Amino acid sequence: MSKNRTALAVLTEAEVLDFLPSPSLERLQDLLPDLEIVDPLTDEFGDWPRRLAEKRPEILITGWKVPTLPESWLEDPNYSLRYLCHCTGTVRKLIPRAFLDRGLVVTNWGHSISRVVAECGLLLTLTALRRVSSWSIDMHLNGAWKTPDVYVESLFGRQVGLHGFGNISQHLARLLKPFGVRVSTYSPSVPDSLLESFGVARAESLEDLFSENNVIIELAAYKPENRHLVSEKLLRMIPEGGTFVNIGRGAVVDEGALLRIAREGCLQVALDVYEVEPLPADSGFRGLPNVTLLPHLGGPTIDRRQDAGAHGVDNIERYLKGEPLESVVSLSVYDRST
Amino acid sequence: MSKNRTALAVLTEAEVLDFLPSPSLERLQDLLPDLEIVDPLTDEFGDWPRRLAEKRPEILITGWKVPTLPESWLEDPNYSLRYLCHCTGTVRKLIPRAFLDRGLVVTNWGHSISRVVAECGLLLTLTALRRVSSWSIDMHLNGAWKTPDVYVESLFGRQVGLHGFGNISQHLARLLKPFGVRVSTYSPSVPDSLLESFGVARAESLEDLFSENNVIIELAAYKPENRHLVSEKLLRMIPEGGTFVNIGRGAVVDEGALLRIAREGCLQVALDVYEVEPLPADSGFRGLPNVTLLPHLGGPTIDRRQDAGAHGVDNIERYLKGEPLESVVSLSVYDRST
Repeated sequence: MSKNRTALAVLTEAEVLDFLPSPSLERLQDLLPDLEIVDPLTDEFGDWPRRLAEKRPEILITGWKVPTLPESWLEDPNYSLRYLCHCTGTVRKLIPRAFLDRGLVVTNWGHSISRVVAECGLLLTLTALRRVSSWSIDMHLNGAWKTPDVYVESLFGRQVGLHGFGNISQHLARLLKPFGVRVSTYSPSVPDSLLESFGVARAESLEDLFSENNVIIELAAYKPENRHLVSEKLLRMIPEGGTFVNIGRGAVVDEGALLRIAREGCLQVALDVYEVEPLPADSGFRGLPNVTLLPHLGGPTIDRRQDAGAHGVDNIERYLKGEPLESVVSLSVYDRST
Repeated sequence: MSKNRTALAVLTEAEVLDFLPSPSLERLQDLLPDLEIVDPLTDEFGDWPRRLAEKRPEILITGWKVPTLPESWLEDPNYSLRYLCHCTGTVRKLIPRAFLDRGLVVTNWGHSISRVVAECGLLLTLTALRRVSSWSIDMHLNGAWKTPDVYVESLFGRQVGLHGFGNISQHLARLLKPFGVRVSTYSPSVPDSLLESFGVARAESLEDLFSENNVIIELAAYKPENRHLVSEKLLRMIPEGGTFVNIGRGAVVDEGALLRIAREGCLQVALDVYEVEPLPADSGFRGLPNVTLLPHLGGPTIDRRQDAGAHGVDNIERYLKGEPLESVVSLSVYDRST
């Protein structure tokens, strides 16, 4: 099925090692015997538009370091590209929109990274409840030890609200299962049957979600109408002694409001994502003992880049067989992405 | 069944609130209509030996603040105590051994706290893999942000070795289930059928456990022959890039060896327990970026003291019905405890 498909992979040496460890690279080479792999960081990579014009790839496999596709290539009568398999996340800076208009099929790492992000959500929740961030500072820098009535909390017995019920949220529901906690979600578009299969209850409104759970995990997708959707009013509905975790998108939350509330010291806050990234060095969140901060480490971790690579190889195989692809970056996904 | 049993609970006001929130206190009062509750921190508590001699309790319910039982009470011809239900952990400082010799039945919080300790084990594992401790310090105090190739890891795809397979370890195996990781344990006394029911593999030796897993979670019980059982040789068998977590007992590990290895920087280490507690302010572990330190927060957290209280009330009910009790502190358990 795969003979004579012209394919070019533009991946650094490190990307090949991280994304395509054995047996992924071997599988890919079996599927695409004529595959050429070039490292965009080497001198021999040369002139990108000329390389594309000469190679005339039908399939491009790309990573973080690939240069932007030259729009001029679309004018080339021998323009050949039909499928771009991007091994990482957003393609906004890599692919001008005109390529998608012209019918280019694009996929990215899609859901292959969801479980690792979900893991980070569980980690941040447990971290916030057990006050690991402030204990890390106090144990390492202040010679601290606990007092008899040290206040830390467990996840057991809590009510967890997931804002959004996409793939990451679904993985998180799986990780929460053995804790036996009540999990509910606000995600109007999700059918009852899906929620039932996860044992997750439906919150009828965002207000219900925030007022009826003492752990809120933010996972709503970013789209313009979701900007600052999580307002001061909503955040103040979280019951006393509650916890707010954001592993979704920073801009979904009114960060100024969250900072005001965090400064009052009652809400435990754990953040992996921010409205402005990198988080400014003088951000007011830095230094607050009830706030856990990670620098957008949600996922995938380096050791799980292989999941994204395997997902890409699966998609190559589907493409060659004429089957539907997963994690397709449609025009509407493209326009929503950052 | 429970009429006219003389019972005395020696609990502070805070202990009653934390250990016996509704409906536990009501259940206890239904079981023991003549129950008297006294707060050992108040003036009216008075003289402990005299109070015991006058009250002649058959059942004592105790917390952290109860004074040591006076051995002189055993000489009293009206000595009445048959069951002591201790709501917390060790009873070594509370009950002279002579009371057990005389046939006193003692229970403590036993397994009711296991799941919360297991949660701490999962938390420390995820924390070590994702480098939360050093990121907490760098984000809060050093204005940090990640570099493109920040090295953090996921639990997915790891091999986890549990040293010991008691109740905490079993709970941890449940929490690890949705990660789909291979879990094995070294615990010679545990039957195959139990391991099979948890989907946990058996390591034939400690050497196998440490050399075949890249995450080791230490949960072996402390007994004199286990002192420094986890030696430098064993610790150096953990594969490169591995993680060592201790939520069991500090003295099971050769802490000096662990510190030497931790200082080399390759092993991720996460500790909740130490050979000497409180951990000395000048401990060499403090300040190491690859070490996560908590001040023995394993469990139970304040919000889950209610589990220990409910466990105690269950035991009172069993005692009154003449059923076998759980979490009995036998003489051999007593002699092993710290």
